[in-house]
Amino acid sequence: MDYQKIINEIYTQVQTEDNKGKVASYIPELKKVNSSKFGINLSTLSSNTFSVGDSNEKFSIQSISKVFSLTLALKLIGEKLWKRVGVEPSGDPFNSLVQLEFERGIPRNPLINSGALVVSDILLSKLKKPKEDFLNFVQKLANNQNISYNSNVVASEKKLGFKNAAHVNLMKSFGNIKNNIDEVLDFYYHMCSLEMTCEELSKTFLIFANGGMLPYTKERVISLSISKRINATIQLCGLYDEAGKFAFKVGLPGKSGVGGGIVAIHPGKYCITVWSPKLNKKGNSSRGVKVLELFTTNTEASIF
Amino acid sequence: MDYQKIINEIYTQVQTEDNKGKVASYIPELKKVNSSKFGINLSTLSSNTFSVGDSNEKFSIQSISKVFSLTLALKLIGEKLWKRVGVEPSGDPFNSLVQLEFERGIPRNPLINSGALVVSDILLSKLKKPKEDFLNFVQKLANNQNISYNSNVVASEKKLGFKNAAHVNLMKSFGNIKNNIDEVLDFYYHMCSLEMTCEELSKTFLIFANGGMLPYTKERVISLSISKRINATIQLCGLYDEAGKFAFKVGLPGKSGVGGGIVAIHPGKYCITVWSPKLNKKGNSSRGVKVLELFTTNTEASIF
Amino acid sequence: MDYQKIINEIYTQVQTEDNKGKVASYIPELKKVNSSKFGINLSTLSSNTFSVGDSNEKFSIQSISKVFSLTLALKLIGEKLWKRVGVEPSGDPFNSLVQLEFERGIPRNPLINSGALVVSDILLSKLKKPKEDFLNFVQKLANNQNISYNSNVVASEKKLGFKNAAHVNLMKSFGNIKNNIDEVLDFYYHMCSLEMTCEELSKTFLIFANGGMLPYTKERVISLSISKRINATIQLCGLYDEAGKFAFKVGLPGKSGVGGGIVAIHPGKYCITVWSPKLNKKGNSSRGVKVLELFTTNTEASIF
Amino acid sequence: MDYQKIINEIYTQVQTEDNKGKVASYIPELKKVNSSKFGINLSTLSSNTFSVGDSNEKFSIQSISKVFSLTLALKLIGEKLWKRVGVEPSGDPFNSLVQLEFERGIPRNPLINSGALVVSDILLSKLKKPKEDFLNFVQKLANNQNISYNSNVVASEKKLGFKNAAHVNLMKSFGNIKNNIDEVLDFYYHMCSLEMTCEELSKTFLIFANGGMLPYTKERVISLSISKRINATIQLCGLYDEAGKFAFKVGLPGKSGVGGGIVAIHPGKYCITVWSPKLNKKGNSSRGVKVLELFTTNTEASIF
Repeated sequence: MDYQKIINEIYTQVQTEDNKGKVASYIPELKKVNSSKFGINLSTLSSNTFSVGDSNEKFSIQSISKVFSLTLALKLIGEKLWKRVGVEPSGDPFNSLVQLEFERGIPRNPLINSGALVVSDILLSKLKKPKEDFLNFVQKLANNQNISYNSNVVASEKKLGFKNAAHVNLMKSFGNIKNNIDEVLDFYYHMCSLEMTCEELSKTFLIFANGGMLPYTKERVISLSISKRINATIQLCGLYDEAGKFAFKVGLPGKSGVGGGIVAIHPGKYCITVWSPKLNKKGNSSRGVKVLELFTTNTEASIF
Repeated sequence: MDYQKIINEIYTQVQTEDNKGKVASYIPELKKVNSSKFGINLSTLSSNTFSVGDSNEKFSIQSISKVFSLTLALKLIGEKLWKRVGVEPSGDPFNSLVQLEFERGIPRNPLINSGALVVSDILLSKLKKPKEDFLNFVQKLANNQNISYNSNVVASEKKLGFKNAAHVNLMKSFGNIKNNIDEVLDFYYHMCSLEMTCEELSKTFLIFANGGMLPYTKERVISLSISKRINATIQLCGLYDEAGKFAFKVGLPGKSGVGGGIVAIHPGKYCITVWSPKLNKKGNSSRGVKVLELFTTNTEASIF
Repeated sequence: MDYQKIINEIYTQVQTEDNKGKVASYIPELKKVNSSKFGINLSTLSSNTFSVGDSNEKFSIQSISKVFSLTLALKLIGEKLWKRVGVEPSGDPFNSLVQLEFERGIPRNPLINSGALVVSDILLSKLKKPKEDFLNFVQKLANNQNISYNSNVVASEKKLGFKNAAHVNLMKSFGNIKNNIDEVLDFYYHMCSLEMTCEELSKTFLIFANGGMLPYTKERVISLSISKRINATIQLCGLYDEAGKFAFKVGLPGKSGVGGGIVAIHPGKYCITVWSPKLNKKGNSSRGVKVLELFTTNTEASIF
Repeated sequence: MDYQKIINEIYTQVQTEDNKGKVASYIPELKKVNSSKFGINLSTLSSNTFSVGDSNEKFSIQSISKVFSLTLALKLIGEKLWKRVGVEPSGDPFNSLVQLEFERGIPRNPLINSGALVVSDILLSKLKKPKEDFLNFVQKLANNQNISYNSNVVASEKKLGFKNAAHVNLMKSFGNIKNNIDEVLDFYYHMCSLEMTCEELSKTFLIFANGGMLPYTKERVISLSISKRINATIQLCGLYDEAGKFAFKVGLPGKSGVGGGIVAIHPGKYCITVWSPKLNKKGNSSRGVKVLELFTTNTEASIF
């Protein structure tokens, strides 16, 4: 299949359409981005990579980093993780604090904010130098040293992160946060601030298309079983309350971030990343969802 | 792969374990079933079928029928369906009426009771002889005339179906039910009362493993795209608020019913059905979930 | 205090102001009322009565009848009532079905619809000729035979009462409705359809200003303790989710109905009724609330 | 009426009954109290005071202080307060964060924690030396310099006050907290840590029985209208989700604290305070509720 031709055509088609949605505004640093940025990259397990548009420009991956922290936590403590966080879709966003209160501080899954905060807390307890160790882990998955935190984004999130502070305090009141609240938030904001290009992100996710083994070094980082389970979690929980529609229209596990990135995994084949900063009402990149829908329709790709 | 040996071994293993859970009690007719019944069938697209235990005994498929009514409704009215019912996982069961009220009578998805009631209402408006036409449709998917409603189960459900009546009345108050309430409930209870064996159920679901084409007659009943979308909906919504755990542990789209049946689909390959009447706390067959987990672990089957 | 002068002045003032709000539209029969109707009556325990405007025209008292059914139920079964219905304010209206589901079919209080439906069910079990016996009871409280049900309003409510049917079915699913659902709804709609004038309503409520004794015949119908408790319930639950604001601004126990009536009780002194059909967003008569606020401000009347 | 005899008899009766409930445990400092402490005081507008038991021992008044902060805020900014906090009962406790999220950071009323945190924020913006000025205001209402904060209780609450921190962060995310979060919490915990005896508390509340005028100095601190409105708010919101039952059984406006104190107001007559540290499931003093119920039953006191 001529992936380069296919993504070029989709890029051109979507480029001519209205660029709908809004850049994330609650993190001031993210508002500075040029909203017309638009890039696509597809990287295969057979070491091919196809790019179009702004696919080699760094952007803030935000919630996409939750997949890396989950992976590291599962590697470190295994199934015990699921005593402190669930694995079910979260339903409607207005429910977030509702469910957290009703379920006594156990977040619905590790890919929503409250769940990722618990994962951060777990990593804080296990890692010697949490921020350094986590960055090293991501660089290893990426096979790339040129990945780093953005301290301006960290500072910007901290300044206005009252809702995250509400979540972490509520969970601490139920005993589901063990470390100091400010340290948990600081670590969490660092992870969210990671910057990558489309190509880097596709390549970093290839481990999940490859059953838990690094495609570059053949090193097994996580077991096949854990790798599949991470994909299942991404499929059910990766796009917040648009997960059903995404599974329905795109048919691949995908994870989005408010920086405008979305990455999707075709197990056994490739990963594809789109970046376009304007978000739809559900908080997912408008063009990103559109591109992936066209891509899987045109190529008949789907896990279903 | 020697499927017969694998299911035999799993059957033997699970048979020796404690038969946990409770037979559904809110439908008196279902309580009469022998709780030690236990059957497995796997049927492939290549026309092989493998059985063990009570796999040729009829049982009440209950909510599994929601997949057939969804399929027929999509065939009849297509994408318009999604104006009256959503496609997102429903979250916690305690939310059902909450969300229905909050979202002004639009059910979360077509595989929960409220959603299936809307689908029933749609079919009632479109079919000339609703009960007869629906039964014919299922018999066609099954390639089998020996499938019918159980009128005792219908009567039993009607007598105590106050919660379903609450749902349908609430949706009618929001204008999302067009037909007479008693007729909607009567049709809905008939669909739930369908009886099949494990083998019949596996074979009836093969159309979804086969991209929408009947494997026996090669007749295309629904498009490839609709078939994939039904699988996606089943994956995300098929096991109520255990959907995440099921995706995580089993890794295949699956649909359960309170009669103790669960059927799972491996696209391009086969369908596998388990029947065991005792249900776990989430309302899904305890042994059914266990068998499917062992099966996909032992065979490394997974869409992820 | 010159009550006639005070209510005349308030009537004139409010009459000149914009007549805001909307006539209740969900009961077609109620929409037919002339929205400019406006009457006030104050009747004292010392047998004086003061009227202005349309105070001798019959209107549909609707939910105000819930106070009479509560009174009769407490007279018949006493404190046992509180096993089947609570006595706390209901909070926000969007919560109604939420709370009913969460609290397993026990309504928050007897003055919201679900609570009054349980009270209807109790009366149905206790009265020989429920509709006749209830009407006789109200006529006795009113010292007036000229009070009756309006069968057009009953028919109109039945036709579109899907939300009430949802409530009663949900409660039946939890075992908190003992009688046939259609009979409960029929009796409930009859009670809501009672018609009275402002003067009749003030006089019927005098028993609650008089500690449970009929002011005309000196007959004790309920104990002093029950009479006070009914007033407390009216104070906390009488105006749905505007109860707090009403207590705050008016300072007397009051009960409203969607027909546009509101009656307030000054224990030991008098009852005052206002009728004006246009309702505010909380479902209470706009002019009714305004008149009572001016009245208690001008006369410095308040139980606080 | 011989109040001394009445409270003596009630004290003796309740003393012989089982001392049910649990001392508040989430504030370690409060757990140290002797759970058998039990005192009653009634103080009248005619300058009489009647005591029994441990009525002259200081205890932590906790949430009862919310009435003083509300009074001072209304005095300082008047009706503008109601733009930032509601005046309706809060319904069920499990709803607290639900409602706060649903109503976008506007707490239900000023007597629940979230509402009192907003009031603290308002006072912080208006007072020059908040802690000193507030203490002076309470001492003035009490006509007593011997009232102070307990810094051990402040420290103890801060250490484990994660739920309050969750509330204040959530409100800040909606823009309904203007000051620094730590300062708001520090001020709030100081107010909660005030210590008084039963007699001091009764006397401090006499201003609300006296229409807003200090009974000792005849100084008018707040208007008659505001005084009545505070009483109405106390009646509807003073005992959390037991407000309805308290209005029903006791029939007077009352405010409780987790330190085991409850004070009730009989407008125009007196205030009565009970202190007993063991709390019922709703968080109100078990013996306190019992004593007040017996008192108003025996004396036929009630505003209804």
